[in-house]
Amino acid sequence: MDPRVREHAEIIVEHSTAVEEGDNVIVSAPPVAEDLVVAIAEKLGEVGANPSYSFNSSRASRAFMRASDPDEFTLPEHKLAEMEETDVVIIVRGDTNTSETGDVPPETRSALAQAWKPVQEERMGKRWVGTQYPAPGNAQDAEMSTAAYEEFVYNAVNKDWDEQREFQANMVEILDPADEVHIVSGDTTDIRMSVEGMVTANDYAELNLPGGEVYTAPVPDSVEGEVLFDKPLMAQGREIVDAWLRFEDGAVVEHSAAKNEDVLGAVLDTDEGARRLGELGIGMNRDIDRFTYNILFDEKMGDTIHLAIGQAIEHTVPDGRPMNESAMHMDMIVDMSEDSFIEVDGEVVQRDGTFRFEDGFEG
Amino acid sequence: MDPRVREHAEIIVEHSTAVEEGDNVIVSAPPVAEDLVVAIAEKLGEVGANPSYSFNSSRASRAFMRASDPDEFTLPEHKLAEMEETDVVIIVRGDTNTSETGDVPPETRSALAQAWKPVQEERMGKRWVGTQYPAPGNAQDAEMSTAAYEEFVYNAVNKDWDEQREFQANMVEILDPADEVHIVSGDTTDIRMSVEGMVTANDYAELNLPGGEVYTAPVPDSVEGEVLFDKPLMAQGREIVDAWLRFEDGAVVEHSAAKNEDVLGAVLDTDEGARRLGELGIGMNRDIDRFTYNILFDEKMGDTIHLAIGQAIEHTVPDGRPMNESAMHMDMIVDMSEDSFIEVDGEVVQRDGTFRFEDGFEG
Repeated sequence: MDPRVREHAEIIVEHSTAVEEGDNVIVSAPPVAEDLVVAIAEKLGEVGANPSYSFNSSRASRAFMRASDPDEFTLPEHKLAEMEETDVVIIVRGDTNTSETGDVPPETRSALAQAWKPVQEERMGKRWVGTQYPAPGNAQDAEMSTAAYEEFVYNAVNKDWDEQREFQANMVEILDPADEVHIVSGDTTDIRMSVEGMVTANDYAELNLPGGEVYTAPVPDSVEGEVLFDKPLMAQGREIVDAWLRFEDGAVVEHSAAKNEDVLGAVLDTDEGARRLGELGIGMNRDIDRFTYNILFDEKMGDTIHLAIGQAIEHTVPDGRPMNESAMHMDMIVDMSEDSFIEVDGEVVQRDGTFRFEDGFEG
Repeated sequence: MDPRVREHAEIIVEHSTAVEEGDNVIVSAPPVAEDLVVAIAEKLGEVGANPSYSFNSSRASRAFMRASDPDEFTLPEHKLAEMEETDVVIIVRGDTNTSETGDVPPETRSALAQAWKPVQEERMGKRWVGTQYPAPGNAQDAEMSTAAYEEFVYNAVNKDWDEQREFQANMVEILDPADEVHIVSGDTTDIRMSVEGMVTANDYAELNLPGGEVYTAPVPDSVEGEVLFDKPLMAQGREIVDAWLRFEDGAVVEHSAAKNEDVLGAVLDTDEGARRLGELGIGMNRDIDRFTYNILFDEKMGDTIHLAIGQAIEHTVPDGRPMNESAMHMDMIVDMSEDSFIEVDGEVVQRDGTFRFEDGFEG
């Protein structure tokens, strides 16, 4: 077996989820990821955990959902009980075809998700991690050979996460006590927001593997200016290119896109919260050096920032601070590698991708 | 998808397990059998069942078992609860390498089986079926190409089971009220036993798919004579060829084999019940026309009988009749196609593979 798969398994079991003896562990994986399941099983055996393995086939999901009457979905009570008794959930993603469920009606999909919501909510309170197996379908989305994509995934995932945590802590120290953030990129992005009183989180690959971002919540009404998201994004199974938003008093008042502008409009119309920002993130995983149409990686890409319209991430908003709420949370990415800067409380903290706490920084 | 896979799924869901709306269904399958899982998922969607899918990887099992301390195996309580709440269990077998767990110490294997015994026992009370996906490892055991093996499997599995049930019922009618059975094949097999008061069962693919046998329990002390099992059998991962047994007062008093005689001896020494017969079966699925080193098929092969040393099958032994008990149940097969007959209460009911109730029978 590829030694990188074993290393990935070790990081999942030891770092991201810290599995202990006697833990009940669910490993959910697609058939294509059997190698990683084998390597995880070996680690779980060493630790003395009790694994069960869930066969997560997008082809089977599609067949089931299309054949079902969406009004009839119910949650078997024992699936909730199972999750309650579970200590750790390891979710491995990996596709042989990322469009596999593309012909399932959205209503069916939401009806099933709705039925299973109690299990999902229960899961959120567990130690869990979502990670990626370098499957051919994901390589294809990234326009890479499977071999090259494997190299990309393992570079991003099999890192010294203690070192990464310390690197990112420099940025948390700047952002956590800050009031105002000002982001400029070329002549297309110039946006200001307050993060006053919000919590800045350091993502070093606990819930997501790879990790590699620092993120917080903007004060909902404080956002002003305009931003061009020069990396593409996927919404409702369609690609939005060059999404552009203009904010006034925190809300999007104008928008456009070079492709699928109507889809962007539909997303913004989801609910009131979908017109406001829920997250400001700073990508700091420099082994993610290219865009691959997979948000698990893209949002952590080095030399980028991302803003999410919609729902704020709960642990970044302390009690008593205003929290943006929405059924939507859509991450949108801005390249910061050239002709760009991030200013925090009037001081430039990153210019053209180099941080203030690094060699080569020019303030 | 191969239409034979869909037909297999239909028989599993509609005939073998009779899944109904609202049933909680566990589908356990190896990654190689994804096609069948997809087809089963579709049927379950149509019926309105609640499936969950278990990823049954022999590679992962091996890795887990080898890495584990066998003294530490415990059964998570929720796995038992899950089985209690389950209505139907569908177990799909299929190997890319049938020797995959060959280097797991037998003690580790039994320790894990022991820990999970309550779940297995609970499962036996459910509607369940064990079936086969035509995977390359199983084709290799059968010395067939995967394509030819697929043809073999689907011929054996995708049958009109009502018709097969009626065909077999003829033999049940003969055997169920019978006292003495006498089986002769060439000059190597001549064995007599009583089946007085025992129940004869008709296997038309409920718990096993394929089905295709009629079976009962010999009275333990009644077996007399000798038998040469001229089809090979696997025990403890090794092949026993030309196993020969001589019975007196129901017990094996002499044995030999052309290959791995010591393994046969070890099996007979398992416990007291391992020297007596637990089952007499008559193979009646004529689409199983060759031996494939897979007992799920081999024991139902047309023109064969099989005898199992060890544990009797509970529902063939009525209350008050003597039941053979053992930790072992090993099926052993005799070819009846030539120079052979089965005599029931002094009357020949099968000669050279043709039954009394068929054209061409010569009594």
